[in-house]
Amino acid sequence: MRIAPVSGLPDSLDRDACAALDAGDPLAPMRGRFVLDEGLIYLDGNSLGALPAATPPRLARVVGEEWGRGLIGSWNDAGWIEAPRRLGDKVAGLIGADAGEVLVADSTSVNLFKLLAGAVRARPGRRVVLSHADNFPADLYVAQGLCELLDGGCELRTVAPAELAGALDADVAVLMVTHVDYATGAVQDMAALSAAARGCGALSLWDLSHSTAALPVDLGGCGADLAVGCGYKYLNGGPGAPAFLYVARRLQETIRSPLRGWMGHAEPFAFEPGHRHAPGVQGFLCGTPPILGMAALEAALDLWLEVDLDAVRAKSVRLGDLLIRLVDERCAGLGLTVASPREGARRGSQVALRHPDGYRVVRALIDRGVVGDFRSPDIVRLGLAPLYLRHVDVWEAVETLREVLATRAHDRPEYAVRAAVT
Amino acid sequence: MRIAPVSGLPDSLDRDACAALDAGDPLAPMRGRFVLDEGLIYLDGNSLGALPAATPPRLARVVGEEWGRGLIGSWNDAGWIEAPRRLGDKVAGLIGADAGEVLVADSTSVNLFKLLAGAVRARPGRRVVLSHADNFPADLYVAQGLCELLDGGCELRTVAPAELAGALDADVAVLMVTHVDYATGAVQDMAALSAAARGCGALSLWDLSHSTAALPVDLGGCGADLAVGCGYKYLNGGPGAPAFLYVARRLQETIRSPLRGWMGHAEPFAFEPGHRHAPGVQGFLCGTPPILGMAALEAALDLWLEVDLDAVRAKSVRLGDLLIRLVDERCAGLGLTVASPREGARRGSQVALRHPDGYRVVRALIDRGVVGDFRSPDIVRLGLAPLYLRHVDVWEAVETLREVLATRAHDRPEYAVRAAVT
Repeated sequence: MRIAPVSGLPDSLDRDACAALDAGDPLAPMRGRFVLDEGLIYLDGNSLGALPAATPPRLARVVGEEWGRGLIGSWNDAGWIEAPRRLGDKVAGLIGADAGEVLVADSTSVNLFKLLAGAVRARPGRRVVLSHADNFPADLYVAQGLCELLDGGCELRTVAPAELAGALDADVAVLMVTHVDYATGAVQDMAALSAAARGCGALSLWDLSHSTAALPVDLGGCGADLAVGCGYKYLNGGPGAPAFLYVARRLQETIRSPLRGWMGHAEPFAFEPGHRHAPGVQGFLCGTPPILGMAALEAALDLWLEVDLDAVRAKSVRLGDLLIRLVDERCAGLGLTVASPREGARRGSQVALRHPDGYRVVRALIDRGVVGDFRSPDIVRLGLAPLYLRHVDVWEAVETLREVLATRAHDRPEYAVRAAVT
Repeated sequence: MRIAPVSGLPDSLDRDACAALDAGDPLAPMRGRFVLDEGLIYLDGNSLGALPAATPPRLARVVGEEWGRGLIGSWNDAGWIEAPRRLGDKVAGLIGADAGEVLVADSTSVNLFKLLAGAVRARPGRRVVLSHADNFPADLYVAQGLCELLDGGCELRTVAPAELAGALDADVAVLMVTHVDYATGAVQDMAALSAAARGCGALSLWDLSHSTAALPVDLGGCGADLAVGCGYKYLNGGPGAPAFLYVARRLQETIRSPLRGWMGHAEPFAFEPGHRHAPGVQGFLCGTPPILGMAALEAALDLWLEVDLDAVRAKSVRLGDLLIRLVDERCAGLGLTVASPREGARRGSQVALRHPDGYRVVRALIDRGVVGDFRSPDIVRLGLAPLYLRHVDVWEAVETLREVLATRAHDRPEYAVRAAVT
């Protein structure tokens, strides 16, 4: 394997060198802001982010005081009713959006349906949703469901990621792209593709699930039109946290969500029989906001607001470079190939390794306290969450991986048994 | 005003008589299972149910242990992945459904969209959604959004509630009815309307938001086809709790949700590019389940599973009869009229009173520790949650109401100022 150019790493790498990198890491104190068992090496913050220490007391207060004692009055008094907008504004700061352009609500898939359906209707005469064939499957499912519902009014067309720009034509209503690939971590060029979509009269719709709080995102600067993203990965909002959606201000009165509920009505408590869209991004709200999930997500967002995302990105790239170089140096000949881009700028905050026994390898690693996950058909996916991951953790993870592979520990029969969630 | 026939109430009503009713109330011990400030008379459990005492420790465990320590492994080890089905089965027992017919997910409005869209597509050649003009407006909004999206493929037709059966014809795909009216508490005849819909080849779709855990519901016995409902009202699942949907088993492979996500896929972790519906009600799942909200709702459901719903209904009717009779006897001439059915069997678990200054009256009551809510244009809505409401609470509430009206305390100017949530 070729050793990729890296920056910020010493020529000779061992555990002490990794410890020295941690000693000089300006983000090192952030680890103390999370609840993490000391023995654990958690490389799955890209699937479920760790628990911020501030979350349990915040949630206990919301439950015990706001719900238990404030009861219905907390919709006003504790600001519950503004939570989708307030949290949206906090997310906006992480993704290059302006206040009033982001709403926290529902799940990523439900939000994607709102924007996709709204976008297709906003481009009459065009019926194609263009996406990449290796997109996160759920995003393709959402588009498929819309196409089936519209019964000819919409068609999903998928191409290889590199062919997206070339496949834009006068039939395309929406270009739907996932910014950072869920499996390999490859980053798509948001500025170029958004411009290409605009140039052909299509809208661009970005899934930021694996990029939000993983790297700086600049929706506004890239001219992106629409976006959705997830609250429970790098954002640390908790299992099944509310998701978010972004609608560029210039499009907020053009794109309309087909999911109409009372919370997106201009006057929810007028109880009018006919729907009137609330102005701005509020009109993309549907049902009653999930306050407990919102409270946990807000605790995490408040932590993120303290952090310099450029510092996070710098550490993320260094952790990824370190992991790849250690795999190159210490796991040669053990059947691993690097599936992620070796160039840090083209890689999100994860490293994917291919191994023919990927599932068994992941299970063996988890048994040894190194928690990553498996993605079909052969990917050992290792997430790098710079707020709580140390360089020595990466060292230990690769050493454990080397030992598993060298001793074929993953051959144990119990590692073949598939769990419901992999 | 006419005094309606009541049962279980003594001829002469005063505070002591109410206290005697509490002394003989088999549900009285349940109040201790909730967190409630002693001075508060909470008549808004139909909007946001009170906090079960078991919820904070349950949620603390899910957050601290399952999320904080179990992390990603809790999807398997703590049963998170089965939560939508497991909670659905618990809800099923409260609404006359079988195990495997109910799913807990998303919001009521999002679930309504899934079922409404699926039902319209399952009745080709029919394009009308028939509903009642006084339905909860959000349900009408959901239908309006679907109609607009389908652009001629669907039409919402509304009539007076009494005219629903007569308005069924060969164009009607779905009869969409709210079982208990959100404002007046009037109960629709589920058996008769479901049969009428079936008789004309339409599907029946019930909104159980104000009936679940408020009165016994028998979806199966009534032959209802589809239903949705809310987790945060009588169920006590917490602010913005996950909602539920019901699909009769006979329809589970016919009706298809247009909201496709990975959690409703037959094999979510196969990451196939094409959607395949998971069998049964699981196919109506879309995105990742909101585990924190699910945990709070499950704590409440476990409490409900201990309760005899017939006993709840008996007490609910008695509380409503008591409230109406006290208003008749003690508030005569003070401008109130009873908007709810006087006959207990036709009334949900709430009493609605009309007053020209309804909003001000509600605000004045809240200031005096009697928490109900206002529904436009003139309804003072008083919810009766039998698990934690006492007969003496109803006495005190009506006395406070009488005092407010008799002294015109509601005329104070600050009571005119509308809050965001009313």
